[in-house]
Amino acid sequence: MTDLILSLDTDDTIPLYRQIYAQIREMILSDALPAGTALPSSRDLAGKYHVARVTVTTAYEQLQAEGFVTAHVGAGTRVADALAALHEPEPFRPTFSKWGEGVAASGQAVVEAVVTKPEIDFGFGRSFPHIFPYDIWRRLLARYLSTDDTMLSRYGSVAGFHPLRAAVANYLRRLRGVNCTAEQVVIVSGIQQALDILARLLLEPGDEVLVETPGYPDALKLFQLHQAVLTALPVDEEGFPVEKIPENSQARFAFVTPSNQFPKGGTMPLERRLALLQWAQEHEALVLEDDYDGELRYSEHPLAALQGLDEDGRVVYLGTFSKVLFPALRLGYLVLPPVLLAPFLQAKQLVDRGAPTLTQAAVADFITEGHFERHLRRLRQAYGRRRQVLVQALQEHLGDKIQYSNAEAGLHVMVYLNDAIDEAAVVRKAAEAGVGVYPGESYHVHKAPRPSILLGFSGLNEKEIREGIQRLAVVLENIDFRQ
Amino acid sequence: MTDLILSLDTDDTIPLYRQIYAQIREMILSDALPAGTALPSSRDLAGKYHVARVTVTTAYEQLQAEGFVTAHVGAGTRVADALAALHEPEPFRPTFSKWGEGVAASGQAVVEAVVTKPEIDFGFGRSFPHIFPYDIWRRLLARYLSTDDTMLSRYGSVAGFHPLRAAVANYLRRLRGVNCTAEQVVIVSGIQQALDILARLLLEPGDEVLVETPGYPDALKLFQLHQAVLTALPVDEEGFPVEKIPENSQARFAFVTPSNQFPKGGTMPLERRLALLQWAQEHEALVLEDDYDGELRYSEHPLAALQGLDEDGRVVYLGTFSKVLFPALRLGYLVLPPVLLAPFLQAKQLVDRGAPTLTQAAVADFITEGHFERHLRRLRQAYGRRRQVLVQALQEHLGDKIQYSNAEAGLHVMVYLNDAIDEAAVVRKAAEAGVGVYPGESYHVHKAPRPSILLGFSGLNEKEIREGIQRLAVVLENIDFRQ
Repeated sequence: MTDLILSLDTDDTIPLYRQIYAQIREMILSDALPAGTALPSSRDLAGKYHVARVTVTTAYEQLQAEGFVTAHVGAGTRVADALAALHEPEPFRPTFSKWGEGVAASGQAVVEAVVTKPEIDFGFGRSFPHIFPYDIWRRLLARYLSTDDTMLSRYGSVAGFHPLRAAVANYLRRLRGVNCTAEQVVIVSGIQQALDILARLLLEPGDEVLVETPGYPDALKLFQLHQAVLTALPVDEEGFPVEKIPENSQARFAFVTPSNQFPKGGTMPLERRLALLQWAQEHEALVLEDDYDGELRYSEHPLAALQGLDEDGRVVYLGTFSKVLFPALRLGYLVLPPVLLAPFLQAKQLVDRGAPTLTQAAVADFITEGHFERHLRRLRQAYGRRRQVLVQALQEHLGDKIQYSNAEAGLHVMVYLNDAIDEAAVVRKAAEAGVGVYPGESYHVHKAPRPSILLGFSGLNEKEIREGIQRLAVVLENIDFRQ
Repeated sequence: MTDLILSLDTDDTIPLYRQIYAQIREMILSDALPAGTALPSSRDLAGKYHVARVTVTTAYEQLQAEGFVTAHVGAGTRVADALAALHEPEPFRPTFSKWGEGVAASGQAVVEAVVTKPEIDFGFGRSFPHIFPYDIWRRLLARYLSTDDTMLSRYGSVAGFHPLRAAVANYLRRLRGVNCTAEQVVIVSGIQQALDILARLLLEPGDEVLVETPGYPDALKLFQLHQAVLTALPVDEEGFPVEKIPENSQARFAFVTPSNQFPKGGTMPLERRLALLQWAQEHEALVLEDDYDGELRYSEHPLAALQGLDEDGRVVYLGTFSKVLFPALRLGYLVLPPVLLAPFLQAKQLVDRGAPTLTQAAVADFITEGHFERHLRRLRQAYGRRRQVLVQALQEHLGDKIQYSNAEAGLHVMVYLNDAIDEAAVVRKAAEAGVGVYPGESYHVHKAPRPSILLGFSGLNEKEIREGIQRLAVVLENIDFRQ
């Protein structure tokens, strides 16, 4: 009979029987206790370590239940024979699918907590925490938390919580000019999820897709991973240049940002919108309208969505709450032409069962009780003012050295720099000066015509914006001098 | 100058200027106002409908901003020419990708709110609402809601909220015998999302996958949609029959439920677990371990996970909170071998940015503060008792007519019926008697060897379970007589 050296800790939160079990198991797996070895009797082991005998028998029973040991009357407890099959560990490297290799090759960095956060961060996609009415939000969540509502205990509908779909449809009809019923609205975890499912439903390898450049990199990468051939048209001040779509284009769809071109800025005028719909009709194609920040216009009224012009169900409208509520909410929505509705839901059901019901219910009330529109008004004021401050600072400190869109919209400004400037150097030097600015190159499909940087302002207050641009100006001046 | 017939409602929540804008816009789009038509002056229209002139000018400005009308000094406001491009609507039907066609052809029904809910519903995947400690859950959520935590306003980490990953890793190490660090844990919206991303990373069309039959239909469909060739091995009382894997199998991975075979019941003994790992090593394959309800064993201690036996990183462990907390939470997790971690996160980032931070933070505290283990103990007691009641009722009323697994685990019992019985008829007749039972056929890859029905008991109390089985017995008796 083998003696066992255990190391038991009565102060540990792990019960003693689990400690005994785990240590013997490890000895068996590491071959320290070979097959056939007799374990000490439970009485002996309990006596040796001053634990109750039942503690040892419980550990042995667990080992037996899992097949590590066998117990026979008269033969005591022995290490099972099956373990002879154990082998030397061998580091394993799977082969990946083309899609998997594409993901790795796309250089897609994993977004993790920023290790060294710049003092003044012109990052994009951050919302300004103090604008959001957390008191109201808390009250709405508490409303659902205070009922033992069985709704919380069931799987939600794959299309989303119906009252939220109705609230979104109503909002989009009234304020975005979208032509839809609640049934056409599907709640998703974000625009990215919606695009992924649409791409899977629609694209075969080699299929053509029309996109804007500069554009939204994660969408472009996603289409490329589906082995789509991207036809990227350089945008101008009025967004996607429909008239430049190649005659022989066979694109399955065009992915566009008509309200406020991302990231350059600019709005598609009616002529282009109609021309795009006509192109889609003539080419049996769809239009994917990404209205990621259509609510955030600071000068005129927000422009109605392109979807509202569509009369034969060719436009898929995509929106998100990440920009106007807060990103961690993880809620977006899309409006599907009726013909795409069932396929989309069937697909979505296979890959993701839906967003948490609780937050969906709270957002639904947030909209229907008028908080959403009040919040949007406050946002427009606060972000509009920040944009003004940013633009004033840019003019004051960098006036003749830069260009940017005049579109008074969105949460960032794309700043085009003097031709001779090294974009990466600006980003690096700015970081050294405690200012986070982001290279424009990653937004361009082809080589960018001019160097550019992206300045998000939604996470900064006015003082930080001014200070950041001052520092950026110093950086640019020094870089200019060297060249 | 055209006269306009508008229908304005001062009681409507839609502002008057939006009503004017929307109605004129609709007339333009429907060609009721052709290109070049002069609109009435704002003064005339305001007078006619007794509204302020600024109401009309605001509507006209919006129409002009969107390009529907043009305004020139001396020429008044006219419908823009661009609209000549408008066309007759033409119903549109896109062509779908192979994947998209596969989704439609899979007959995947969309889960919507059940229209006619049976009085006693033996549905699977429902949790019993009154067991979950909503008071504690509320308190934990409120903790995060009462701070204006900027965490809520940022995009979360794609791998999940780190404290939750650490809490899950710690729990899995201690109570499921999983060998992992917090970094290997990735939070997902559910097992389905995890499987989808893994399948995309690993499978090319035509690749072979080993699965159990009966098995989890949504996983099997998902693999099929990736054009995988399924080798489905009929399970026995001890789960997946490793020794029956065909000699020439080239499977990329085996998808198995070792703790409690779904849906038949039964646990893979150590010999088979080791043999499966050895097979994987010899065939450069992975093992996907679906531990969907590994916590829910009612007789012995829960068995340790297969993953804990893996020494060279071939096992992906999948778990979910849907069964043990509540489904509407939409949180699952997987433990990845280090070599798969970066590719998985890169892929996940492209298709879904992550779960809401708030619920992740609350679940993390729920685990680390000991509520989770207390809740599991209560669940085991409550569900174990329900399972007993169900099994007793089955024996009492249907004893010799049925067979089922003795595995005292899980949230359902798969009941095999007499050969001659028509499964669909049982389901239909039971529904007529107010009892929801579910056909076993949909869980089988090949034709099922015997008719069977699935009885979930997690949404019912003991009285309902007894009553339901009594009614089911009457149904079966009458069906027997007819044959």
